[in-house]
Amino acid sequence: MNPSKLSEISRPIAAELDAFQDLFKKSMRSKTPLVDLVARYVLKQKGKKIRPLLVMLAAKTQSEVNERSYRGAILVELLHTATLVHDDVVDNADQRRGFPSINAVWKNKVAVLMGDYLLSKGLMIAVKNKDFDFLEVMTDTVRRMSEGELLQIQKTRKLDIDEETYYKVISDKTASLLETCCEIGAMSAGASQEERIAMKKFGEYLGISFQIRDDILDYEGTAKVFGKPIGGDIKEKKITLPLIYALRTVSKSQASDIRKLIKKEGKKDSVRKVIDFVHEQRGIEYAEVQAEIFAEKAKDCLKIFQDTTAKASLTALVNFVVQRKN
Amino acid sequence: MNPSKLSEISRPIAAELDAFQDLFKKSMRSKTPLVDLVARYVLKQKGKKIRPLLVMLAAKTQSEVNERSYRGAILVELLHTATLVHDDVVDNADQRRGFPSINAVWKNKVAVLMGDYLLSKGLMIAVKNKDFDFLEVMTDTVRRMSEGELLQIQKTRKLDIDEETYYKVISDKTASLLETCCEIGAMSAGASQEERIAMKKFGEYLGISFQIRDDILDYEGTAKVFGKPIGGDIKEKKITLPLIYALRTVSKSQASDIRKLIKKEGKKDSVRKVIDFVHEQRGIEYAEVQAEIFAEKAKDCLKIFQDTTAKASLTALVNFVVQRKN
Repeated sequence: MNPSKLSEISRPIAAELDAFQDLFKKSMRSKTPLVDLVARYVLKQKGKKIRPLLVMLAAKTQSEVNERSYRGAILVELLHTATLVHDDVVDNADQRRGFPSINAVWKNKVAVLMGDYLLSKGLMIAVKNKDFDFLEVMTDTVRRMSEGELLQIQKTRKLDIDEETYYKVISDKTASLLETCCEIGAMSAGASQEERIAMKKFGEYLGISFQIRDDILDYEGTAKVFGKPIGGDIKEKKITLPLIYALRTVSKSQASDIRKLIKKEGKKDSVRKVIDFVHEQRGIEYAEVQAEIFAEKAKDCLKIFQDTTAKASLTALVNFVVQRKN
Repeated sequence: MNPSKLSEISRPIAAELDAFQDLFKKSMRSKTPLVDLVARYVLKQKGKKIRPLLVMLAAKTQSEVNERSYRGAILVELLHTATLVHDDVVDNADQRRGFPSINAVWKNKVAVLMGDYLLSKGLMIAVKNKDFDFLEVMTDTVRRMSEGELLQIQKTRKLDIDEETYYKVISDKTASLLETCCEIGAMSAGASQEERIAMKKFGEYLGISFQIRDDILDYEGTAKVFGKPIGGDIKEKKITLPLIYALRTVSKSQASDIRKLIKKEGKKDSVRKVIDFVHEQRGIEYAEVQAEIFAEKAKDCLKIFQDTTAKASLTALVNFVVQRKN
């Protein structure tokens, strides 16, 4: 399988993904014209749909995609969309997936309310169908996602994040949802306790390597078509793994000089210097190795499952995540 | 009973409210220092605590305040606090209950994430204690609150809201949560289906008169110690009941002139003219009569309950709500 193409990875559940897309659209409908208008706008920005893909591949690895798997996929995608919409406010981002952000188009008011609306819609679907086991994992995930971001903001101010705290941040803000996708997928398809935990762990490790890769991409020199511009994290004073490693390899006074550059709020020149410093100190290579380690750990979690095309796709997805260019 | 003092109204459940306050504080705790810091800041701004008061009075009218009543009260207050924190972003408000808003102090980033954190915390407590019936009413309430605000924003742009839509907006954005407080209180204390519906209706009517009163206060001439400044709604182009009525009493061309004044984005002079117009056309008196009608409807809903001090307090609370000066 060619792991560079998501369409190939999703082939074993192509029909299910189409069915999902229809159900997802319906789940966002509203009688309030403004809500409906924003929802349509959100739907136009087609993301990678990695989260519903994970739910359905996890289910298919177990047995079959069923009604509950679809509901789980809709729940995670509605919540993910809610956090994206809220992130637009959070980051003051002007662009999201190449589109102007909701925030820029409709301002903060609508973005906050629309995020709350999508979040409640997801939870309502779970409540109405009595998927209380989904809610149990999901409400804690929402807590971890917001708390992880807040921890990052706290550390950002002091520029004092170490590797251990970095892993706590990315585990909470990113991996927790991917973990939940896999767990919910397994739960929907009658997994045993052991299988459920293995799938959850798979999602966690996948999520960690996903975020490390995301943080590496912020340092890569090639212009990106989608996503955040290069050096965006440094401008926001987010210290991620490549920089954490680079700072560790130099003397205290050198590290202090770099921190002073970061404090210069995104001057183009100083951002460039920090990027060069990270490359010189081999921060990218270090982070790539770590992403690979977590990718291998993720693959190990799949060992207890029978070899199926769905399982092969999960493995290919791991490779896709650590090799992606955007 | 003197309905002008909340402390008198809450006397029948004074001990329970103290116990609630302790539990509420605990529910907001976090190991992440920034989250804890913001939570402490939020706790310092003591609001009227009308929502937990409603839950507990509704329970006490039925039988006794119990563990589930406390959890219900914490759920509604966490959600209410979450919406207040999100409102700070939404309104770009600088002040909230006389304090600088979270937004002004910590900026939008933290306000959005902290709101999401509080929301998930409330839902987590319900999930962990298997209060699924609470979740059923609560998730729909969150949906109505965000959708109601979005409907108001939509109508605000066109300045074309009529009385019927006004009631839909305030029923969704404000009354829905008060309705849920009363319903959850009744549910926690073993209410019959008939009692549960009566208590829910009580909360709905109370909530509508509460919001009409709130909208009247925006036109009242006396300087207010707490809350929003006079004319704030007009500045934001929110057309509320006093103005809807006033516009209806004049010719189309006169109404069109007033709309032009409103479009002049909050010039002090034009805001003053709109306020004077509403007073001249007796918009305040009309809204006061409507608030009274809903207050009476609310009291009617209590007829099926036995006369207790808790029921007397609910009646006094209705009077407090329609007579309050802030």
